[in-house]
Amino acid sequence: MHDLGIRKLAIVGVGLIGGSFGKICREKKIAEVVWGYSRRESTLRKAKELGLIDRYSSEIREVVKNADVVLLAIPVESIINVGEKIAPYLSENVIVTDVGSAKEEIVNKMENFLPQGVRFVGGHPIAGTEQSGPEAAFSELFERRWCILTPTNNTDSSALDLVKTLWERTGAMVNVMEPEKHDKILALISHLPHMAAYALVNVLSKKENEFPGLFSYAAGGFRDFSRIASSSPAMWKEICMHNGRAITEAIEDFRAALLEIGDSIGVGDGKKLERIFQKSKKTRDELYSKASEVS
Amino acid sequence: MHDLGIRKLAIVGVGLIGGSFGKICREKKIAEVVWGYSRRESTLRKAKELGLIDRYSSEIREVVKNADVVLLAIPVESIINVGEKIAPYLSENVIVTDVGSAKEEIVNKMENFLPQGVRFVGGHPIAGTEQSGPEAAFSELFERRWCILTPTNNTDSSALDLVKTLWERTGAMVNVMEPEKHDKILALISHLPHMAAYALVNVLSKKENEFPGLFSYAAGGFRDFSRIASSSPAMWKEICMHNGRAITEAIEDFRAALLEIGDSIGVGDGKKLERIFQKSKKTRDELYSKASEVS
Repeated sequence: MHDLGIRKLAIVGVGLIGGSFGKICREKKIAEVVWGYSRRESTLRKAKELGLIDRYSSEIREVVKNADVVLLAIPVESIINVGEKIAPYLSENVIVTDVGSAKEEIVNKMENFLPQGVRFVGGHPIAGTEQSGPEAAFSELFERRWCILTPTNNTDSSALDLVKTLWERTGAMVNVMEPEKHDKILALISHLPHMAAYALVNVLSKKENEFPGLFSYAAGGFRDFSRIASSSPAMWKEICMHNGRAITEAIEDFRAALLEIGDSIGVGDGKKLERIFQKSKKTRDELYSKASEVS
Repeated sequence: MHDLGIRKLAIVGVGLIGGSFGKICREKKIAEVVWGYSRRESTLRKAKELGLIDRYSSEIREVVKNADVVLLAIPVESIINVGEKIAPYLSENVIVTDVGSAKEEIVNKMENFLPQGVRFVGGHPIAGTEQSGPEAAFSELFERRWCILTPTNNTDSSALDLVKTLWERTGAMVNVMEPEKHDKILALISHLPHMAAYALVNVLSKKENEFPGLFSYAAGGFRDFSRIASSSPAMWKEICMHNGRAITEAIEDFRAALLEIGDSIGVGDGKKLERIFQKSKKTRDELYSKASEVS
């Protein structure tokens, strides 16, 4: 028997996140057997070849049947659908957890339709690279990265403890907070910068008609700023659809801050501008010391 | 006699830009003698020690007297003041040029008050590092970087040719356009991203009271995005004061693009969101191929 009492771990989605989780659980012998599910059999074969899972099936019911823990490591828009689909096949007392980057809606719906006895714990490991798929999986993905767990009043505390321990075993630092708070924090620190980068590149792109060659004058600032505008449009559309309220609030706060700068320029209030810029520089410099930024 | 016919080159401001320019002109023997001026004598001594200039004086009139070319390599807010101050000491037919990052106002004022016979050419080398001062100067600073020259109908064409040749000798690629066009392009590609980074960091900083530890959840996206928020507040205040109209226009375009995203989220128009993100990703990916971004 393994020390956490997990006989069968079922991972739905064996890409970067799920695959890395499986690899770690196999390497650290966290479960007796790690099963994987994917819609494509070729992905499952690849995951097994790479040592991310022990066994697989392209029948999801087979994968989750008798599992002690089910990890839903699939895009945010699929989590609720797949949760509904697997509900009839789950064992009593199974722990279901997910990795979705927006939590309130997922947690509410999962708590609503998962059968009595199924213990759900919402989770979000803040880790990733620009790669995806099982080939991208690696054992160090979660090391010293945050994983946020989002229990509610309905969450079973022993299930929460187990999921917390699981993530800690991957090397992640676990933090626990309400789903709504998670969503607001992510909207600010992650979703808003992505929206800003997308919007900025499009503003410039539209102006390129008027100023041909506009982008050729770009220096390092624009390059750094716009990097995240290369992120997956499909994924970010789904994040927006699942965390809409918090993201639109963050966008409004950002638009207000831009308006304040624009108005200060308009009235020629140099002192105010310098205060605004100084405050921002101070915050940024305190976050990242110069020395650590040589790259 | 040197091949461009420059006997005395006077550089006002011997920091990163002026110092690098002087170093190159000395190394390539572009002028017979390179003079430097700075408000601080210690800066001038350092510049001479480092081989950026041949001679110096802390009397500006001495530095510009009998100069064939005067380069004003000082912050944008000082260019007009210093131009006025040196006007009485300039020789007939001297060429005066500058490096200010906003051009319309500088060019207008310089053309107004520089005496008949003084030939002014507005310029802006788009180069720089996060360092400043003569110690930061180096010969390769301008290599394969743009230098934009902004002549008007009043500009002497032989002066324009000479300044163009000078910058080409530093390794820069020279482009010529109207001052107004320069200012609009820079507002979009450089000034707007800086305003966005400053505003974003301040929005998050304000929210940190509500969500303590907010910044600890930052990943690479925020780090890259916010890097330019560490830029000099004093310098950026001045850029805003000298390129106000173009920057406020760019901010309004950006706010409109953000509103479009926010509204699309608000009405749940996932297809539109995906189109917006896709357009941005396409532009960004075309600008920077993946391979060149490994860092």
